[in-house]
Amino acid sequence: MPRQITAFSNPLVKQVRGLREKKNRRADGQFVAEGLRILTEAREMGRLPQILFFAEGTRHPLLDALIATTEAAGGDVVETNADILGKLTSKDNPQTAVGVYPLPATDLAAIDRDAAPLWIVAQALRDPGNIGTILRTGDAVGAGGLILIDDCADPFSFEAVRASMGAIFTQRIAAARWEAFQPWLRSGPAQLVGTSLQTSHDYRDPCYEKPVFILVGNEQAGLPEAYEQECDLLVKIPMLGKADSLNAAVATAVMAYEVINQWRS
Amino acid sequence: MPRQITAFSNPLVKQVRGLREKKNRRADGQFVAEGLRILTEAREMGRLPQILFFAEGTRHPLLDALIATTEAAGGDVVETNADILGKLTSKDNPQTAVGVYPLPATDLAAIDRDAAPLWIVAQALRDPGNIGTILRTGDAVGAGGLILIDDCADPFSFEAVRASMGAIFTQRIAAARWEAFQPWLRSGPAQLVGTSLQTSHDYRDPCYEKPVFILVGNEQAGLPEAYEQECDLLVKIPMLGKADSLNAAVATAVMAYEVINQWRS
Repeated sequence: MPRQITAFSNPLVKQVRGLREKKNRRADGQFVAEGLRILTEAREMGRLPQILFFAEGTRHPLLDALIATTEAAGGDVVETNADILGKLTSKDNPQTAVGVYPLPATDLAAIDRDAAPLWIVAQALRDPGNIGTILRTGDAVGAGGLILIDDCADPFSFEAVRASMGAIFTQRIAAARWEAFQPWLRSGPAQLVGTSLQTSHDYRDPCYEKPVFILVGNEQAGLPEAYEQECDLLVKIPMLGKADSLNAAVATAVMAYEVINQWRS
Repeated sequence: MPRQITAFSNPLVKQVRGLREKKNRRADGQFVAEGLRILTEAREMGRLPQILFFAEGTRHPLLDALIATTEAAGGDVVETNADILGKLTSKDNPQTAVGVYPLPATDLAAIDRDAAPLWIVAQALRDPGNIGTILRTGDAVGAGGLILIDDCADPFSFEAVRASMGAIFTQRIAAARWEAFQPWLRSGPAQLVGTSLQTSHDYRDPCYEKPVFILVGNEQAGLPEAYEQECDLLVKIPMLGKADSLNAAVATAVMAYEVINQWRS
């Protein structure tokens, strides 16, 4: 049976509210996902929350299933009110369900490159919304996951998790310095493809060979030149207007769809 | 000669700070763009600010050119400090230059469909970041502009202008209800292309005929069925994972690059 919490001063509420900060996510080894649909997708992937909050008076078959499986797995199920739920998520539009999940391992050893034909590698991406959107795109193109190089925004932040629309649970996530990523990448088959303004090589011309690793650079600076030199292919997405670059998540998607379209043809 | 303002209580500072709200932008007929690079792109497009703020002590050839052309055109050039500049933009990372521009006309009459082979039409898009990102993509694919249907976020908001990275000045922008857009669209040549989950028609199969109007739906709900029925083509971007949709700005870009890639081939 779910227990009830209706006091904002409750220690569990305070702890979960603290998970909006990265240092607390690290210390507690947990992150938060919101929304019945996304929590249900996680459940279908075999990922259950350690703590599940839901709003009193909410009845939905998917919520019932989520409560039942979470309780069966020994999770803590908490019935609360919309006000507290809103404070857990700091949103104007609170969700009916909030789940607290264990942070997965994010070392490169978590990545099995044979598990997918395509992987996305992001370097020094600073916008958590971009990271979440790239995860969502990764899911759509059948990528295996996202490898975050150097200092990126946290993929387990509220904003990134929200923008991922559930892909935080379907995509493998790793984080590494470039110096560690390089030898790992070359320890097996890999075609590292960077998008660059320094080349005239149209992104539709090469033959992409599995497994492809698409490398995306920082929103302002793009890829460091030394990283570009390590790419097996440097390609350019045509820019027909005044601007010289695309949004990082958009460029990743345009590139990734070209790769899978070649394979679909 | 630039005049100096260093008091936060100055009426002009208060007025420009007020432009963060849509009702003030409408009342004053003005919007704000930030950053020397974007203001310079605007200048190169022949768009000059009515008011230009810059930080005292800043020297840059592009800033000098901006000041000179703004003054020559009768604009108000104001030297101020970094603190006030930061307050005008509500950013942690204030820019060295902020421009106040007249809101352009946004009725459909502002759109000359013969001016470009591709136009983007967004319906009920609620995220200003998505609108700015779509403008940026529109510039990159050589689109003529963005037509906003029904209740969309304001393309002249700070967030949208920022995300557009200057495309707010290169893309035509119109806003209309669907009931007005429909007869306008059909008063000339147009291929209206919607992306939909309700079709199995792969987005790479059709032959796209200029001028193409790409129609994108609301972030949550997608396109209303009645709008889909008005499309000349309904196509589907393949989704290989668990998710059933892409971010709206990502979907627009994937679609737009397919269209121009056909024409480039």
